Amino acid sequence: MAVYTEVDDTALANFLADYDLGSAIAFKGIAEGVENSNYLLETTKARFILTLFEKRVNESDLPYFMGVMDHLADKGFPAPLPVKAKDGKALRTLCGRPAVIITFLSGMSLSRPNVEQCRELGEGLAKFHAALSDYVGDRKNSLSVEAWRPMFEGREAEANALNAGLTEHILSDLDALEAEWPANLPSGVIHADLFPDNAFFLGDKLTGVIDFYFACNDALVYDIAICLNAWCFEDGRGEYNHTKGRALIAGYQAVRPLSDTEKEALPLLCRGAAMRFFLTRLVDWADTPKDALVRPKNPIEYAEKLGFHRNAKGFFDYGG
Amino acid sequence: MAVYTEVDDTALANFLADYDLGSAIAFKGIAEGVENSNYLLETTKARFILTLFEKRVNESDLPYFMGVMDHLADKGFPAPLPVKAKDGKALRTLCGRPAVIITFLSGMSLSRPNVEQCRELGEGLAKFHAALSDYVGDRKNSLSVEAWRPMFEGREAEANALNAGLTEHILSDLDALEAEWPANLPSGVIHADLFPDNAFFLGDKLTGVIDFYFACNDALVYDIAICLNAWCFEDGRGEYNHTKGRALIAGYQAVRPLSDTEKEALPLLCRGAAMRFFLTRLVDWADTPKDALVRPKNPIEYAEKLGFHRNAKGFFDYGG
Repeated sequence: MAVYTEVDDTALANFLADYDLGSAIAFKGIAEGVENSNYLLETTKARFILTLFEKRVNESDLPYFMGVMDHLADKGFPAPLPVKAKDGKALRTLCGRPAVIITFLSGMSLSRPNVEQCRELGEGLAKFHAALSDYVGDRKNSLSVEAWRPMFEGREAEANALNAGLTEHILSDLDALEAEWPANLPSGVIHADLFPDNAFFLGDKLTGVIDFYFACNDALVYDIAICLNAWCFEDGRGEYNHTKGRALIAGYQAVRPLSDTEKEALPLLCRGAAMRFFLTRLVDWADTPKDALVRPKNPIEYAEKLGFHRNAKGFFDYGG
Repeated sequence: MAVYTEVDDTALANFLADYDLGSAIAFKGIAEGVENSNYLLETTKARFILTLFEKRVNESDLPYFMGVMDHLADKGFPAPLPVKAKDGKALRTLCGRPAVIITFLSGMSLSRPNVEQCRELGEGLAKFHAALSDYVGDRKNSLSVEAWRPMFEGREAEANALNAGLTEHILSDLDALEAEWPANLPSGVIHADLFPDNAFFLGDKLTGVIDFYFACNDALVYDIAICLNAWCFEDGRGEYNHTKGRALIAGYQAVRPLSDTEKEALPLLCRGAAMRFFLTRLVDWADTPKDALVRPKNPIEYAEKLGFHRNAKGFFDYGG
């Protein structure tokens, strides 16, 4: 949950004066996203989400993210549309922070996605990649392989405190990932954080994808690797649900079949994706002050997933 | 902000099966109330607020609160209505907690109520009292004069740490309040926590009153005293805005004129109301753990308001 910046009714009314959205009739801070402040905003015209970007977001990246949402909406992909003010600009300032109003999407986040929902998510991911295939923006993945060793440095004792011997495993994983990380895979815009929190469903149908604030240009199949980690393990444990994985991959391939090179790369990319989330959670776990508004997630879950990927032999281990 | 109990989509779907509200199409934790967990729930039929009562609420008081809301809605007062499940009961259990679905009210909370809004609030408060004049439920005010000295005991050093010499003032206030606290004032159901957070406005019109979880039976004019403290001081300081106070009292008296006894009692009741909020904030300030989801409010604001009331000579000091 996260409302870091309090927006009062006066500030909101002044802000809305720049738009053609009518006036506010309801406004509530919501527990969505962990990096930014989010409000549900209802005006006399419609419902929206107001996002204020907090310090962890790099302001220079915001036009890229806005462009991704615009592009997706243009292509009919179910993503929120940044709403333009009267001057044609969606990205504005509120309470000293960059801020944007985006359209409201219906749907529910799933706590335990079923097999059909995993298939639907895979298909949605492929459609997301396809919709963005002609997007001209470019943003480097700042949380990829070269970032990982520096993130881990100095945290060896913390990792061993979580699980005896974990540091040794992480260091050998980093060696392998750095040595074998593939270049030249088909690339494009990836979501890079498509966890169940960031997808809305009505029944088994995907009705919305949100939170594009880790989106970047990288190998498309790396996005599948992230989703397999996020969607296809049993609740917070290192047990891979092969049936769900197979469904997710099949859903993806129904729209965009993977090349042999991508299939071969998948196990290592899954290991890398688990490493990325292990490391960011490890850093947050150690660095989050006790009075923070967000409770950090335990990194152990991703250490266990790393254990699965370390032993995977090939694409078939994932249901491919 | 407050979402203490996480409700997932499966738990929610099971819960909604007991109602005739259709299925959920959006569900977001919201930052409303500090004692309970609140979610905005949209179903295929309408929008609602789902509240889960957390540990600080006494379960045996819940039927009284539900009855107050039912009664207000029956009388056409703009308060949320507890929604009954198929078995006719509004008060249920979700995730091990007492839970209720109430109707959604439009409107915005005011950060800086203006004079007209203070008048409207006073009028709304009198209508609230009138609507509940035939409510049969009875609940003692557990945060009234006899509760205050025990709350302060052991916190003398904390109070002096906030402001040198404050403890001496508080002890002499408690002496005066205990000696002079009036009995036999016209009484009935009071809201007892009608802060700007708990009132919704559209423009200058009061469109909703929420959060009845401190409601109790007590002197009606004590509710005015609470509102004068909450609505008519300059932002977080001990400076009374006489114009706003006069408007609030006039709005109230337009519906229910105060007796001479009530007018005479008002200054002491204002001092008592300031003491009540000073003490609960002092306790929360000292006792809230650093990792809590709610940031405690600084009690100094109410120590300053106490200073104003200590020097007030009569009803006219408040704009009466």
